Amino acid sequence: MKALVYHGPGKKAWEDVLDPKVIDATDAVVKIDTTTICGTDLHILHGDVASVDAGRIIGHEGVGTVMEVGSGVTNFAKGDRVIISCITKCGSCQFCQAGYPDHCQSNDAGIGWLLGHRIDGTLAEAVRIPHADFSLHHVPDGVTDEQAVFLSDSLPTGYEVGVLAGGVKPGDVVAVVGTGAVGLASILTTGLFGASRVIGIDTNEFRLRKAMEFGATDTVLADENCREHVMALTDGLGVDVAIEAVGFPETLQTAVSLVRPRGRVANIGVHGLPVELPMETLWIQNLTMTMGLVDATSTPTLLKMVRSGRIPSEKMGTHAFALNDIDAAWNVFANAGKEEALKVVLKA
Amino acid sequence: MKALVYHGPGKKAWEDVLDPKVIDATDAVVKIDTTTICGTDLHILHGDVASVDAGRIIGHEGVGTVMEVGSGVTNFAKGDRVIISCITKCGSCQFCQAGYPDHCQSNDAGIGWLLGHRIDGTLAEAVRIPHADFSLHHVPDGVTDEQAVFLSDSLPTGYEVGVLAGGVKPGDVVAVVGTGAVGLASILTTGLFGASRVIGIDTNEFRLRKAMEFGATDTVLADENCREHVMALTDGLGVDVAIEAVGFPETLQTAVSLVRPRGRVANIGVHGLPVELPMETLWIQNLTMTMGLVDATSTPTLLKMVRSGRIPSEKMGTHAFALNDIDAAWNVFANAGKEEALKVVLKA
Amino acid sequence: MKALVYHGPGKKAWEDVLDPKVIDATDAVVKIDTTTICGTDLHILHGDVASVDAGRIIGHEGVGTVMEVGSGVTNFAKGDRVIISCITKCGSCQFCQAGYPDHCQSNDAGIGWLLGHRIDGTLAEAVRIPHADFSLHHVPDGVTDEQAVFLSDSLPTGYEVGVLAGGVKPGDVVAVVGTGAVGLASILTTGLFGASRVIGIDTNEFRLRKAMEFGATDTVLADENCREHVMALTDGLGVDVAIEAVGFPETLQTAVSLVRPRGRVANIGVHGLPVELPMETLWIQNLTMTMGLVDATSTPTLLKMVRSGRIPSEKMGTHAFALNDIDAAWNVFANAGKEEALKVVLKA
Amino acid sequence: MKALVYHGPGKKAWEDVLDPKVIDATDAVVKIDTTTICGTDLHILHGDVASVDAGRIIGHEGVGTVMEVGSGVTNFAKGDRVIISCITKCGSCQFCQAGYPDHCQSNDAGIGWLLGHRIDGTLAEAVRIPHADFSLHHVPDGVTDEQAVFLSDSLPTGYEVGVLAGGVKPGDVVAVVGTGAVGLASILTTGLFGASRVIGIDTNEFRLRKAMEFGATDTVLADENCREHVMALTDGLGVDVAIEAVGFPETLQTAVSLVRPRGRVANIGVHGLPVELPMETLWIQNLTMTMGLVDATSTPTLLKMVRSGRIPSEKMGTHAFALNDIDAAWNVFANAGKEEALKVVLKA
Repeated sequence: MKALVYHGPGKKAWEDVLDPKVIDATDAVVKIDTTTICGTDLHILHGDVASVDAGRIIGHEGVGTVMEVGSGVTNFAKGDRVIISCITKCGSCQFCQAGYPDHCQSNDAGIGWLLGHRIDGTLAEAVRIPHADFSLHHVPDGVTDEQAVFLSDSLPTGYEVGVLAGGVKPGDVVAVVGTGAVGLASILTTGLFGASRVIGIDTNEFRLRKAMEFGATDTVLADENCREHVMALTDGLGVDVAIEAVGFPETLQTAVSLVRPRGRVANIGVHGLPVELPMETLWIQNLTMTMGLVDATSTPTLLKMVRSGRIPSEKMGTHAFALNDIDAAWNVFANAGKEEALKVVLKA
Repeated sequence: MKALVYHGPGKKAWEDVLDPKVIDATDAVVKIDTTTICGTDLHILHGDVASVDAGRIIGHEGVGTVMEVGSGVTNFAKGDRVIISCITKCGSCQFCQAGYPDHCQSNDAGIGWLLGHRIDGTLAEAVRIPHADFSLHHVPDGVTDEQAVFLSDSLPTGYEVGVLAGGVKPGDVVAVVGTGAVGLASILTTGLFGASRVIGIDTNEFRLRKAMEFGATDTVLADENCREHVMALTDGLGVDVAIEAVGFPETLQTAVSLVRPRGRVANIGVHGLPVELPMETLWIQNLTMTMGLVDATSTPTLLKMVRSGRIPSEKMGTHAFALNDIDAAWNVFANAGKEEALKVVLKA
Repeated sequence: MKALVYHGPGKKAWEDVLDPKVIDATDAVVKIDTTTICGTDLHILHGDVASVDAGRIIGHEGVGTVMEVGSGVTNFAKGDRVIISCITKCGSCQFCQAGYPDHCQSNDAGIGWLLGHRIDGTLAEAVRIPHADFSLHHVPDGVTDEQAVFLSDSLPTGYEVGVLAGGVKPGDVVAVVGTGAVGLASILTTGLFGASRVIGIDTNEFRLRKAMEFGATDTVLADENCREHVMALTDGLGVDVAIEAVGFPETLQTAVSLVRPRGRVANIGVHGLPVELPMETLWIQNLTMTMGLVDATSTPTLLKMVRSGRIPSEKMGTHAFALNDIDAAWNVFANAGKEEALKVVLKA
Repeated sequence: MKALVYHGPGKKAWEDVLDPKVIDATDAVVKIDTTTICGTDLHILHGDVASVDAGRIIGHEGVGTVMEVGSGVTNFAKGDRVIISCITKCGSCQFCQAGYPDHCQSNDAGIGWLLGHRIDGTLAEAVRIPHADFSLHHVPDGVTDEQAVFLSDSLPTGYEVGVLAGGVKPGDVVAVVGTGAVGLASILTTGLFGASRVIGIDTNEFRLRKAMEFGATDTVLADENCREHVMALTDGLGVDVAIEAVGFPETLQTAVSLVRPRGRVANIGVHGLPVELPMETLWIQNLTMTMGLVDATSTPTLLKMVRSGRIPSEKMGTHAFALNDIDAAWNVFANAGKEEALKVVLKA
């Protein structure tokens, strides 16, 4: 089959590789019908993710059709249409049993993100899925591939690491720093908890327009007056929850500066550098700060909301390509700001 | 009357001042029977707390007897024996109504800590208490002054900002970085939630011995092998909760380094400097970090536990002085490590 | 002034009474601008509420203008436009401090519902409000009387006792048994937590139509096939949350019969009879059942949502009358089913 | 092998049966080392549990040694010493993934209690355990069989269905109605949450003495003055939490009568009859009532506490027998009150 292989920093190729097959009794092999590229995949190509070896097929999102299952798989069968979770969950380690498969201890790395990272991933014509009973979801009738593909990772990340970790509750004022795909996923799902005001903050006008389309009530340009503008939209004390969806020291510091006493800062961004926090003023502010990888345990809930029409997840996909045209898709996504792209959808 | 007046950095005097009196209808005046000095008072004398003006009577802890109440006070009367909360709570602003009087908005500073900070405090023969109905607690029979005085601030701080914010739950392994008075207050109250192991960490052997007396199951010297020793006391992944009770960049960084994925770091320490956090490794660890001033809303609960004998709060007081000997008491407390002191008790 | 006085079972009169005045320092007197009649007022007239004495001015909802405040009132002043909470909250007893003013212990009855019950109420041209700082809310610009009047009781009751106590969370299927005014208040606010499906159940076609207008996704007629129809709308196991908003044994038993294992039943209805529960089948179902009076602590949150347009509370009022026409208003409300009425709005 | 077989109401025999073996890939076979009889087993013999067929080997508690595992079992191997959970958990159905294996949907009955109920159980020399990876727990060194055997069901039931469902928190006053084995398990684990007072209530003097040994602070005889005595032990308003551990209408009604406004009633008892609740007085009391089967998901946490010495679970076992003497053991347990027995321990 064909797959996108990482060959070291800056090098990738859509090339022939061996077909995946069932190895363990709990494996499934899934034919990819629809997939998408993640910002993390861009980081991998840049060589920023040291734990990805050359030769790895990358990608960790996708919707597909089960081709084969091992003898220990009981919930899925050949022909089933499935969402592939970005998190591979053993189900029985202490972290999985506690509901935290992002730190699944069943592998040496102690991490639930295996696809396109420690094992071959979904930017391919097919993929092997370990622990299939826990790592796949059935797609109900009436939900399209273009909706479902964002339930692998993008939407759960914005929801779990942003909205849920941020503890958004009815009446809250929420700021989202960075309104790219993941920040928009937070905006799209903040409405589930009745925020009274959602403020999108970004440097890019296209993304700010999208923020309003996705449910923001206000937008603020991320410049030197940003904090002042946000304060003016509150009672002067700041927002209840700030969600950081970028991953730079400055953006996290901005998020921290926007919240009121007793506020919460939910960091989604993947950071590459240490961040200095002004603890000499923060210690007395009773802030709570959270951070982390997605568990993707919210996929079934989000699927219900997509199916009932409450979450129009298909709006995340702004550009569509054939899977064979992955190089073109990559170029658009790697220049998302200029191309006015959010997520690119790849169809087999 | 006599009171301890701050006269600018490095200068204090136990001197004659005017007697306090009822100003607003919701005020009470309380004669101090027993009081104590807080680490924050030391900081004030050093000039570290810019919001304290010269001429201020300092101190924010104490047990006393009500001498007079305003016409709007309904829950207290002359002669009542009371604990003075370190937090002055209006009760009706949005923060007080939400249970967060530490950020009471009824004063210009928007803060609940007024005594010995923005208004005259408790290191005196008497003190005026605004919003008395919300800022005093009756002392039940059977609870001594020496037990009750630590319910003004020390014990609630260790409990609320450490144990509650840290989300300690049955079976948890908890590390307490810094086993001075406040860290010990966390250790003393951690048992309320069934921690399976409590590890005290400090540089001082006296304080480590005290940690064991207060309920720690293990102690670790705060040296370069500290993290390694703590990991060896866990399953190798780290503790569930780390409580920071010192206030330096290094101690907070230590606390952060000790927690397992999905762990919680509760900062109690008062910081004077920014702190750099290694977000490039933390972002994926799903940590929660909290910080803040005490609300002192747990005083009634802690009082029940003191009364029933479950919390021997009197162990916090290692040295006793007459209130008139406050200079001697101050010297002991300012050299607590060398003097093997935790808290000093001052009796009128 | 004029007021509606209860003179024993079946007897009421809109008659001249003495003007209210400030008695305690914490009182306010409020001129009524807009008020409404509650189902509880109907019960009082029937003689069902033994704790209401003859001679009492009834009513506990209203929007008005502050005419006078006592010396201990700090948050309100003459001329302020206010919502009168149905709960009179002292703010400082153990229940009020814990956030449960419905069981305020500052009065002999140990209950927060005093207006139109233990003291004179709001179906009058003016009313005395004890503990005004805790029992009134400022009405912001842009919120009309016709919206605000339902924040005294109706909307908070549906939200707190139904939606919050029921623990509604994103994706849930919720059934509301009884879609009169309070059941509709639950439907209107269920959306704040992202329920995926809301099923209105009633015997009255008008109220079922209203349920759809207020946000239900489905309606089911309350007949002998009701349970079967509801099961068919779920995965066959039942709903996540059932809210009971009627107050008869049969309606509570219906609610209990609709929930799935681990489900929640939130009783809002005022009951006059014991209720037999089939514990021989329920004990293994891991249900949670809640019940209770409203705290009305959610009024500020709901006010934000009304102001931002997310909750169109004015839809609760189907008929309007002059306050002087209260007898006509009463007749319509007492025959709400036939008159196709929800709540009647009375304007001074 | 030998096993205790139920042959219809009133009939049981310790007789030869076929050895259990691995059927599904996820099965394990465990040799029983230590087991115990549950009150539910008595009910089965009486014919009260219609879902148990004649011919069934009963029993659902035990500690043993793994003899064989299927190819899909990854966490356990031959020779491992294990606690057998009373709940057989598939791990992947919606209820198991939500943390509620008591309602595991992987079997036709939709229930997690299979052992000694729908499939053969643990009162035998060996037992087949389906879904072994999720239904067994490793026993750490230093924990004896006599401690571990009560972690299959008894201790988790008292803890989860009583203490956790009851929401016990520091400072609470807790009443336990019925201080047999399960009520005592609640008392033993209530301390994990810092209850200030624990009141044991029973008709049996032996069990009341045991209540004090297990951690109760007070006992009250269950007679007509019971409520009055309990009120006198509180501030007159009642207890915060009442745990029902018997299963009769009267005992549940007693529990309900003891709680204060905003209190919680946690029903553990297995009921055989409907129960009438006085909703005409309860509706306004803001009570929460819970009920249900155990999940046994707390076994790992309780195991930590047993291992650290905080929970002396071995105190549950008052009488010991050889497994072959199960008839004698049964007779003692069936007359527990007279025999002054709590649980009987059976050793292979």
